[in-house]
Amino acid sequence: MGNGQGLKVAIQGERGAFSNEAAVGALGPEIEIVPCPGFTELFAAVSEGRADRAMVPIENSLHGSIHENYDRLKTSALHITGETQLRIRQCLIARPGATLATIRRVASHPVEAVTAYDTAGAVKDLLRGGLLTQAAIASRLAADLYGGQVLLEGIEDDAENYTRFLILAREPGPIEQANKTSVVFVLDNEPGVLYRALGLFASRGADLCKIESRPLRGYPWEYSFYLDVLGDPRGAAGDALRELEGMAREMRILGSYPEGLGKPAAA
Amino acid sequence: MGNGQGLKVAIQGERGAFSNEAAVGALGPEIEIVPCPGFTELFAAVSEGRADRAMVPIENSLHGSIHENYDRLKTSALHITGETQLRIRQCLIARPGATLATIRRVASHPVEAVTAYDTAGAVKDLLRGGLLTQAAIASRLAADLYGGQVLLEGIEDDAENYTRFLILAREPGPIEQANKTSVVFVLDNEPGVLYRALGLFASRGADLCKIESRPLRGYPWEYSFYLDVLGDPRGAAGDALRELEGMAREMRILGSYPEGLGKPAAA
Repeated sequence: MGNGQGLKVAIQGERGAFSNEAAVGALGPEIEIVPCPGFTELFAAVSEGRADRAMVPIENSLHGSIHENYDRLKTSALHITGETQLRIRQCLIARPGATLATIRRVASHPVEAVTAYDTAGAVKDLLRGGLLTQAAIASRLAADLYGGQVLLEGIEDDAENYTRFLILAREPGPIEQANKTSVVFVLDNEPGVLYRALGLFASRGADLCKIESRPLRGYPWEYSFYLDVLGDPRGAAGDALRELEGMAREMRILGSYPEGLGKPAAA
Repeated sequence: MGNGQGLKVAIQGERGAFSNEAAVGALGPEIEIVPCPGFTELFAAVSEGRADRAMVPIENSLHGSIHENYDRLKTSALHITGETQLRIRQCLIARPGATLATIRRVASHPVEAVTAYDTAGAVKDLLRGGLLTQAAIASRLAADLYGGQVLLEGIEDDAENYTRFLILAREPGPIEQANKTSVVFVLDNEPGVLYRALGLFASRGADLCKIESRPLRGYPWEYSFYLDVLGDPRGAAGDALRELEGMAREMRILGSYPEGLGKPAAA
């Protein structure tokens, strides 16, 4: 991609967060990062015009979906215009002058339960504090940005640690380049209805690469379903989506965009 | 149900937790509660013989699935032998003698991020502490057990707040009474394979009441799928499950048990 000159891209967390890495990787080094403390603020930054794009982590290959962001996608009016993935490579970062022998305490800030971490913020705090006994775990980018020293690189437990990000904007992306569509819908609570819905795609050879369900507020044990569908939204996938709209109690196309995953690069 | 005389039932949290309420509701008032600090200890209590049953919250009608317990179901050797649901009715609890006018501070202990709360423990601590200015939010059962006074009842934001619990044991339950089966499986990563798997059930009229996916460690963007299937496990549902086993890369039947949900009682 690239040509992100002057594009304001909102991320959750401080500059140097993995979301910052993902944004630069997908949209180029010339973008302007807009840090947001939480995911609510991240969506609001684009909705309210303070940023042009939001970089939203939606799924991690070890920990699974970030369900609260699926919920936000449904209620937000933003459009998915792209996706990217980032291998999460954790570094042990300390002040210049520190060595492994001087480190006594390691910080990595959880900001919001489970899903939102401000690891870059931990590095910023660390270097402001200035003790040679302290270290933080975060990205190499965070070390570079705040003048930290990388003592160890690649200390994550599991090398197959990837996070998938969605790129959101106020307007839909160009449909000519799209070969993937994300949709959320609610079906009547009838036997076999989900199978029939999936059949609309299977019968047209439009492959489903992700299915997710979330509770439907006010209807215990009923669900909103989220699908990622491969295929031309102006062709077979689009036909299936139109037919699904007729079958669904409610439905919203979250966006059509170019698939940005493929197989992750070998670890 | 009932006849739980002497049955040791493990719960996450202290006596008086919502899991305690659910256990008494499903297994009778004569059971012996075995409190466990976290979900890992909850599964271990039954695996290692310190309890006969575990009461495992698996899904909440507002917040969705408790995904970490889905992960534990897959790796544990325990069997689902039943399910139940509980309406979450929150009370504001204080010391005898306190009134709404004396309360200045309200506690409700999150123990583990998001999913495991020890609300009953908050009540226990509160009544040990003894200030008339403090209150806690928990179940009526917690107030009764620890001698607290219920100042307000039904203060939850949303009345449609139900938690579904699974009952786990070391041995499978009697298949004669079962009309629901939970299964976890992994499919080859091929187009349309999930649709074909679901078709095994649809073509036999075995209704699916829940589908869930979790990341497959070591295989980014591949998933374990969890299904809850209605129908006789000795009849059509069982036939579909056997055929699924032939199609799946791996599969484990988590248990066959009597459906315990239906529509929740009106709020």
